[in-house]
Order: sequence, then structure tokens, then C-alpha cells
Amino acid sequence: MDDLIERLRAGLPAEALITDPDVTVSYGRDMAGFCAAGTPAVVVLPRTVEQVRHVMRTATALRVPVVPQGARTGLSGAANASDGCIVLSLLRMDRILEISPVDRIAVVEPGVVNADLSRAVGELGLAYPPDPSSWESCTIGGNIGTASGGLCCVKYGVTAEYVLGLEVVLADGRLLNTGRRTAKGVAGYDLTRLFVGSEGSLGIVVKAVLALRPKPPAQLVLGAEFPSAAAACAAICAVMERGHTPSLLELMDRTTVRAVNATTGMGLPETTEALLLCAFDTPDPAADLAAVGELCRAAGATEVVPADTPAESELLLQARRSALPALESLSTATMIDDVCVPRSRLGEMIEGTARIAEKYGLTIGVCAHAGDGNTHPVVCFDQHDPEESRRARESFDAIMALGLELGGTITGEHGVGVLKKEWLARELGPVGLEMQRGIKAAFDPLNILNPGKLF
Amino acid sequence: MDDLIERLRAGLPAEALITDPDVTVSYGRDMAGFCAAGTPAVVVLPRTVEQVRHVMRTATALRVPVVPQGARTGLSGAANASDGCIVLSLLRMDRILEISPVDRIAVVEPGVVNADLSRAVGELGLAYPPDPSSWESCTIGGNIGTASGGLCCVKYGVTAEYVLGLEVVLADGRLLNTGRRTAKGVAGYDLTRLFVGSEGSLGIVVKAVLALRPKPPAQLVLGAEFPSAAAACAAICAVMERGHTPSLLELMDRTTVRAVNATTGMGLPETTEALLLCAFDTPDPAADLAAVGELCRAAGATEVVPADTPAESELLLQARRSALPALESLSTATMIDDVCVPRSRLGEMIEGTARIAEKYGLTIGVCAHAGDGNTHPVVCFDQHDPEESRRARESFDAIMALGLELGGTITGEHGVGVLKKEWLARELGPVGLEMQRGIKAAFDPLNILNPGKLF
Ligand SMILES: Cc1cc2nc3c(=O)[nH]c(=O)nc-3n(C[C@H](O)[C@H](O)[C@H](O)COP(=O)(O)OP(=O)(O)OC[C@H]3O[C@@H](n4cnc5c(N)ncnc54)[C@H](O)[C@@H]3O)c2cc1C
Ligand SMILES: Cc1cc2nc3c(=O)[nH]c(=O)nc-3n(C[C@H](O)[C@H](O)[C@H](O)COP(=O)(O)OP(=O)(O)OC[C@H]3O[C@@H](n4cnc5c(N)ncnc54)[C@H](O)[C@@H]3O)c2cc1C
Repeated sequence: MDDLIERLRAGLPAEALITDPDVTVSYGRDMAGFCAAGTPAVVVLPRTVEQVRHVMRTATALRVPVVPQGARTGLSGAANASDGCIVLSLLRMDRILEISPVDRIAVVEPGVVNADLSRAVGELGLAYPPDPSSWESCTIGGNIGTASGGLCCVKYGVTAEYVLGLEVVLADGRLLNTGRRTAKGVAGYDLTRLFVGSEGSLGIVVKAVLALRPKPPAQLVLGAEFPSAAAACAAICAVMERGHTPSLLELMDRTTVRAVNATTGMGLPETTEALLLCAFDTPDPAADLAAVGELCRAAGATEVVPADTPAESELLLQARRSALPALESLSTATMIDDVCVPRSRLGEMIEGTARIAEKYGLTIGVCAHAGDGNTHPVVCFDQHDPEESRRARESFDAIMALGLELGGTITGEHGVGVLKKEWLARELGPVGLEMQRGIKAAFDPLNILNPGKLF
Repeated sequence: MDDLIERLRAGLPAEALITDPDVTVSYGRDMAGFCAAGTPAVVVLPRTVEQVRHVMRTATALRVPVVPQGARTGLSGAANASDGCIVLSLLRMDRILEISPVDRIAVVEPGVVNADLSRAVGELGLAYPPDPSSWESCTIGGNIGTASGGLCCVKYGVTAEYVLGLEVVLADGRLLNTGRRTAKGVAGYDLTRLFVGSEGSLGIVVKAVLALRPKPPAQLVLGAEFPSAAAACAAICAVMERGHTPSLLELMDRTTVRAVNATTGMGLPETTEALLLCAFDTPDPAADLAAVGELCRAAGATEVVPADTPAESELLLQARRSALPALESLSTATMIDDVCVPRSRLGEMIEGTARIAEKYGLTIGVCAHAGDGNTHPVVCFDQHDPEESRRARESFDAIMALGLELGGTITGEHGVGVLKKEWLARELGPVGLEMQRGIKAAFDPLNILNPGKLF
């Protein structure tokens, strides 16, 4: 280990290296509870590509595992340290290098915070759509690592759709350029997309070319209260079947609404079983909302309340964004699931989750990127009660099993990390897993890049 | 070879096998001129996944190369036979298995023709956007193989954006499922995208889950005549910089316009140096076209003619779609380039191409998916004149060199095949090439899947 620190020091400024165990321990884990995490040997905070290359060359020479980290807001333990690893935090590589309104691209370093990029491009009339609820802290590097989604993805797609090209430091320190700066390009296999969602296991992203869009008009939000999740899901299906393109289509169940009220004092309607939020950023959002309002009423909505102003709309969005933290405050511990099903099966998914909650005698609050069929059931429990903890884990697993049964996936956007490794194997099957491992071996033959994650 | 036929026959109906050399020879090549093509040992036209698996098991056992084919409209030789290979034509696996308006997906076999799918989903109010100009003949399997683009990609993106999940027969006959039926999903590496654009070199696509969109309103097209390509490109930049989202933004130079008139008798304006076509499918396309018309005039357009009716618009689109065949009719032989540059560099690209044409003393007509920065310079020459043929190849190469210089790619949508192998290596560089080869080896260790293509 002394050798490791020594060698790292040879190519890094002193301020880039943290060895104090009291400090390094704080880089141990992301925001996922109940995931194994080890103790890093050292934390490195590089500012340049050359420094990253030095770290990887050193790691390869000494066969030391490297765990890349962004803001550690991840929800699957994908950024958790392993014992004796180098934590490679990209937070200080946070420059926006270029924004081109004609080419509609931004070139950024990985440590740029999502919302900072949004604001910077917004000033030029542009938008970078992928907007995880954690956008005020999560980084573009982490977004690429997890292929993250967000609220506006139902219309604008996820991170993967916006990454055009990457500069990557490989396990052995070599530099790889993937993709392009152009709108299109098909020169060879799509390595760019391979890196998106690879959870730091194939290489270190040190630069990204991102696609931008013209900034859409401000969106107008409608809230609709339903007597059951099934009714809300029927409305969602009707909205999509009729060919509407909402810019947001989210759902919060009663548990979530109450939790949000408790933590924010927002005064959302607590009698509803399911609160649907729908928004449009079209030229005439009020007309679109009126049409959707009709569909909601036809599906059984008891109240349909369009926001009158952008400010009111923003408030509803804030409520939705605070759903996860609010649910987490309901108990001493939570496990956050992330199952995504075909939206035609969303009703079954939510009802099935309620049955699972009943069976295991636990509170499971559900908020969902409903337009995408992506639910986040949050299992609430007391981690000091071993029996309840066991039930929590079992219900968490039962939810994923249900998702697969309904033709869905175990993770819509939060990723696999260490939390869902066994479930990834189940979803992919033996052939899928073998091909994935083949790719891992081609990029990281020594298995030093974020080992123990994914599979 | 007798052994090969024998073994194939054991698992295939007689009608699935063609061994008559007079017939098999007609499966030798795609639409790219001047690409090496060999003589297949046999052509197989399976109807089921099980039959495809039998072919691959046999090929693996006997180490025989397999060349998958769709409609062979490809423009890079990617579907060309190699000597003694099995040509595996997927044309008879042409069923649309499912269309779901709620989930906005279609599930199809690979041999479905692009326009057939478009029509089928159109009847349900849906659209499958990627629309290569060859859409009346090319197949979804071929579109996936080449990651093809088209006219509407400037707004709606390319094939890659619409492939959610795949069923693939691997080199050894095993079945791999990738991706999902859901709107989102991040379970493991994105193998789906890896297959898109892999030109049949990683596996045989036997089923695809495709994303659909609500059918947009009919688009209205505007034609604008410019005294120079530079002026037209300035207009394109202005349109994009102002935040417009045209559903089509295409360019034809004078050579192309004349060729189209000559083959179709359409009567497009022949005095223009560059004809720009711009369309909107927004709620108020006339208003959007008016705004774009202003920008065109400001950039120097001499005429700006909005179509009055959808029928007039369709005529202009037909003109654009017939551009490649029209240019091909100008000489006994052509080479079609496919360079894509950042759209801010499009003017330089087109002017540079004109200089190249002059230098080599050849006619090079240019049509372009201009909004994407994707040009198709068509080098016209007499293949019976060896000296002119040499100049043609040199100018073809010079165009790619210019594209790379301008920060572009050697192929925006037509792919690498055998036509651009050396250029792929140049674009990717040694590290990129090595990683690509690593992936190929992981999927196809015996190198029997479309060997000799890409790299
Ligand atoms: C309150 C809250 C709300 C959330 N809402 C959403 C949501 O709506 N949608 C959603 O998708 N997620 C959401 N998340 C999860 C999380 O914010 C996202 O996964 C985010 O993308 C993680 O970014 P990060 O910078 O924190 O990355 P980290 O957690 O630090 O890392 C994530 C992964 O990326 C890898 N990585 C990081 N940087 C690099 C790099 N430069 N090169 C290679 N690999 C790298 C890491 O190794 C790790 O595997 C939420 C989380 C919280 C706490
Ligand atoms: C007039 C004309 C206009 C064109 N316009 C455009 C355009 O606008 N945009 C554009 O992008 N292209 C265009 N093209 C090129 C061509 O049509 C596209 O590349 C198309 O996607 C090829 O489809 P195909 O079915 O003919 O495939 P093929 O040419 O038969 O095959 C293409 C590649 O895919 C592989 N492949 C085919 N099926 C499978 C399968 N099931 N599994 C695995 N691999 C498979 C083949 O091995 C080959 O590598 C045009 C061509 C012509 C002749």
C-alpha cells in the first residue's frame, strides 16, 4: 500500500490525494442502503486527463481495483468502495468545455453537475433534457455511468439518447475516443452506448460530447386524483393510446403523497389513492391538458386540477422530486426498487406491489415515472429488527420477480451495482450473462475496474 | 461442400435451400459498386428461428462463413458474399408479430420491409420514423445491421434510437435476448445498441422490439433556391441556431437537381446552385415555414417556395428520394460517399467537395441530409477508363479525408462494409480498433460471421 501511495504521488499534485482514513472513509458508499462497501486505500481527485491516466497505469501495474465516483447519489451501490481500492472521484473535473448552439452539442468533463449544465445551456436557449430528481447534485459522469433517467424522459428520452461521443481512459491508462461530434455516425460498433450504463466497469469517462435540444416552452402541469391506482393506470394507457405526448407523466400513491406533505408541508390532497401528474410543453398546453383531463375523468378521476401558472406547475414538480427523500423519512431504513414494466402492465405492477406489502406486513410507498412504466416502490422498515429486515429484503425481491413476470426489467434507471447482482443474472439468463462478461474481459482483463459490481 | 449442403438439408425444408449456382450468384452483392464479392456455396432462406439456429450450428461445426442478408440495398458491400459462404437471407422471415398502441412498440421479424411496417403502424395512428430513401425495399434487419438513417432523422433520430430489444442467434447457434419491451431499462451493458450497426458481424437478428411514436401531422415542405452551397448552409445553421425543429432539412446541388429532372421529368428549378428542402410537421407548419423562409432570404435565397398542399409536399420529397438513383444514372459508374460533419462545418464540406471534383476533373453530385450534416457526394465516372476509375477512387478517398479533417465521420448512415475498411481504421485509431476487435472476438471467436467486413 505504501508503494501504491508512493507511485500515485509521483504523477499527482499533493492536493489530489487523500490518504487520511478519517476522510477516505466518507467516500465509502453511495446513497443505497444495505449494500456491501469496503474501505478505500486512497481517494484521488484528479483535475486532468493525464492524472486519470496516471492513476490507471498505476492501478494496472499494481493490480489495484479502482472505483470511479461522481456525486455518489447512486441508488444501487455502484459507486461503493471495495477494500483497498483507489477511489477515483471525478468531482473536480467539472468544466463545461464548449456549448455550440448550431451543432446543438455540449462538451463537458465528467464532474459537471447535471443542473449546472442545464442552467448553462438554458442561457443559450438550449436544454439538456435528462433530469434525475437528484439533478442539483448528481454529475454527468455518474449519469453516464448509470444511464440515468428522470422526469422528462417520457417525452425526451434518457441519458443514453444524449451521449454522442466519449473520451475514456481504459484500465491500462490508454485513451479511447468513441463516437462523434456529429448528429449521426455509424463507424464501427457503438462503443459510446456500451459505456453508458456500464457503471464504471469498462473505463473512466473523462470527457463527453452531449446532444442538446432547443429549450421547450415552460410546461403546464395537471394533477388528477384517482380512487385507485388501477384507475390512474387506465388513464395513463388512454393518454398514450390516444397519441398524446406529455412532457411528464408521474404517479404518487397515497403513502407518497402523505410523506411529501409531512416533509414539505405542501398540502397535497391526502384522500386520493393515486395522484397523477401530467404536463405538456406544447404550443398550447392548456388544450392538451384539457383533453387529458377528460380522459382522466373517464377513467374515474375524482378531481382534475390544472395548474394555472408555471409557478404552480413548478410546485407540483418539486413535490414529485421530493418523493424519494420523503418516503425515506418514513422509517429508520428503506430499500428503493426500480422496476420498469411495459406501461400496459403498470396497473398490475402497482396492485401486485400492494399485495406484496400486505403479505409482508410492511409499508411500501410507490412513486413512478408512470408514462415509462417505471415504478419506484420504497420498502420501509426498521433495520434494527432482524425479522422485519428479512421481510423487507424478501418483499424487495418479490417486487423484482413480479416485474420480470410482467415482461419488465429489474432496473429502469438506477442500475444494478451490488444491490441487484443476482437479479441481473436472472434477467439476462446464462447466455446474456456470458456475453456481458466477454465484453468486460475485453475491456478490463485484469478486472480492476469497479470489480464486484454488475456481475 | 457436399457435407455442408447435406448437413444444412438435415434441418431445413427443401424450399429453404438454393444451391443452383445460376441462382446463388444473384445473391452475391448489395447495391455498392466496386466492392469485392465472392461466390456463395449456398443460399438459405429460413422461415423460423429454429432454422436459423440450425444454419449457425452447422456453420460453426464446419467453420463456414455466414453472410446475413436483407434486401441487399446496402451501399457499402456489407452484405456481399465471400467465397464458399452460406448466404443467410432473412427475407422470408417477414411477419409483423405485434403492434401495441399503448406500449408504442412493434415486434417484428427481420425480413419485414421498412415501408410495410410504416403502413401497418400508420393504420393505428402510429409511426416508425427511420425512413431510408430505399424504404420500399430495405428490411428492418438490414436497417438494424447498418443503423440506417433517412429523411426524417433530423427531428426523429436514426434506427438506433428505435430498437429496444433483440432476439439474436449467435455464431454457435445459441439464442441471445437483449434489451427489453419497456420504455426504459438499464440492466447490464447495452447489447442491443451494440448489434445496431454491427453489419451482421456479431449475430443474426431474428426478432426486434421497435419503439413507435404517435403519427405526426402531415408535413409541409418549403423549397428554397440559393446562389451557392455556402449560402444554403448558412441558412441551415441559422435555422438550427434559432431553435427550429424541422422534420426534414435536405439539400440538393445543381448536378443533383438536373439529374432528378432528367430521370423523373419533375421540373425542379435548374438555375439554382443549391436547392434546400425544409419541412415541419408541427401544429402550424405554415407559420414555421414562414419563419424559415425569412432566414433563407436573409442568407441569400433567390426564391422561397412553400408547398401549398400535402400533395405538393409529397412531390418534393419524392424528388429528394430519387436523388441517389438519379445521380447514378449520370454515368456508367458511381461511388456514393456518406460523410457526416458537424452541421456548422457543412458549408466547408460541400465547398471542399466541389474543389475535389475540380481537382480530379470529375462530376461529383451532392445531395445531403443537411440538417444532420450528412452529405452523399456521388462520384460519377466511366469504369471502363482505368485512369478515370483511379481518379474516382482518389476523389472518393479525398472526400473522406476532408470529412475527418472537419471533425466528421467517414460514414453517417451507410456503414463500413468492405468499401471503407481502411478508413474505419483511420477514423478509430489503433486503440479504438483494438477494442472493436475485442468485441468481435467475444461474440464470434471463430470469425465466421460476415468475415472481412468492417475491419
Ligand atoms: C433523491 C434522489 C433522487 C434520484 N432520482 C433519480 C431519477 O429520477 N432518475 C435516475 O435515473 N436516478 C435517480 N437517482 C439516482 C442517482 O442520482 C443517479 O443514478 C445519478 O446518475 C448518479 O450520479 P452520481 O454523480 O451521483 O454518480 P455516482 O453515484 O457517484 O456513480 C454512479 C455510477 O457511475 C460510475 N461513474 C461515476 N462517474 C464516472 C466516470 N467519470 N467514469 C466512469 N464511471 C463513472 C460509478 O462508478 C457508479 O457506478 C436519484 C438519487 C437520489 C438520491
Ligand atoms: C436508392 C437507395 C437509397 C438509400 N437511402 C438510404 C438512406 O436514406 N439512409 C440510409 O441509411 N441508407 C440508405 N440506403 C442504403 C440501404 O438501403 C440501407 O443501408 C438499408 O438499411 C439496407 O437494408 P437491407 O435490407 O437492404 O440490408 P442489406 O443490404 O441486405 O444488409 C445490410 C447489412 O445488414 C446485415 N443484415 C441484414 N439483415 C440482418 C439480420 N437479420 N441480422 C444481422 N445482420 C443483418 C447484412 O449482413 C449487412 O451487413 C439507400 C440505398 C439505396 C439503394
